[in-house]
Amino acid sequence: MTLALYDLPTSPNARKVRLLAAELGIHYRRVELKMGDLQSREYLRLNPNGMVPTINDDGFVLWESAAILKYLAAKHPERGMLPSGQKELAKVDQWLFWFSGHVEPALDQLAWERRIKPYLGQPGHDPTLIAAAEAALNRFLQVLEKQLMAKDYILDKLTIVDFATAPRLEHAPTFLEFDLFHYPNIIAWIERLQKKPYWKDA
Amino acid sequence: MTLALYDLPTSPNARKVRLLAAELGIHYRRVELKMGDLQSREYLRLNPNGMVPTINDDGFVLWESAAILKYLAAKHPERGMLPSGQKELAKVDQWLFWFSGHVEPALDQLAWERRIKPYLGQPGHDPTLIAAAEAALNRFLQVLEKQLMAKDYILDKLTIVDFATAPRLEHAPTFLEFDLFHYPNIIAWIERLQKKPYWKDA
Repeated sequence: MTLALYDLPTSPNARKVRLLAAELGIHYRRVELKMGDLQSREYLRLNPNGMVPTINDDGFVLWESAAILKYLAAKHPERGMLPSGQKELAKVDQWLFWFSGHVEPALDQLAWERRIKPYLGQPGHDPTLIAAAEAALNRFLQVLEKQLMAKDYILDKLTIVDFATAPRLEHAPTFLEFDLFHYPNIIAWIERLQKKPYWKDA
Repeated sequence: MTLALYDLPTSPNARKVRLLAAELGIHYRRVELKMGDLQSREYLRLNPNGMVPTINDDGFVLWESAAILKYLAAKHPERGMLPSGQKELAKVDQWLFWFSGHVEPALDQLAWERRIKPYLGQPGHDPTLIAAAEAALNRFLQVLEKQLMAKDYILDKLTIVDFATAPRLEHAPTFLEFDLFHYPNIIAWIERLQKKPYWKDA
């Protein structure tokens, strides 16, 4: 077993990788870090951002969860989690970059203001930052809500796009106090994924 | 000529596509939009985010600049702007997602506060949002600065990663009032790209 996953138990980005690994039946060695380990010299040599997840696949080090999902899915082409046609691949990229560039920064901002800063003893709860994040979420989640109309998954079938996105949104109501009430298609899609036998415990 | 690029002259994200098209010698039809066109029903059918760039390649519609760069580069594999090995591809993805998820949201925030909101007659210049954006930039640009140490390009040779990133950073000092003074490797890399004969006018 040569694949190592550097992980924080609370990181939704690391969880994306654990979920895809469960779906694909990929075995890996989980290296559980603590918050304080992220800035250690040793870890920064692997990932200079001091973030998780990072994988080390027999000496090949890779960070950024979406890049890791693509890399792992490409190693198992028979499972079809990453389509092989140029146009289908481009649509995977489109939705991954859309989420990474528009939705996740807003989720991150909410997480910092409502959870991480208070946890670190900083005030957090800045109304300006929270309002900006919520406005961005409401703008872009409408696009996802429409995309999921009459569809089971974001693309025509289950792909890594679902693994890159749903794990960040499913805890938004409880963890980030961001209600998904206005997004019934998004709620139904998350519930569909939650029925996977490994979903809860990955 | 069947490739159309929907473009705003002032959009740095659309400019990434124009620059790569110039590098690859790709001909396209440029559809120049105005700010007001982005929310038109016709354009929202192409790109439900109301953003540029969007391409229409003989009926195949694609948005998100990084996805477009990958798609166009993959159509010209002989030019090597997108490596073909799984690990090399994964490193391209890593840096694209890193930039899209960490650096660009901060650049966007500065652009909105310092340029776009004032242009739209809104106050903008919110000190909390500007400070958060500058802190993120200073955190993540250190990672890029280190990556560019003793290297001409972000990866081992010129790739779409450079096209996805440099066009957003080169005008940061003048347009966003964000100084790159502390990042000499980044400055030298941008100047290297600016020597391309098409760079100034693309």
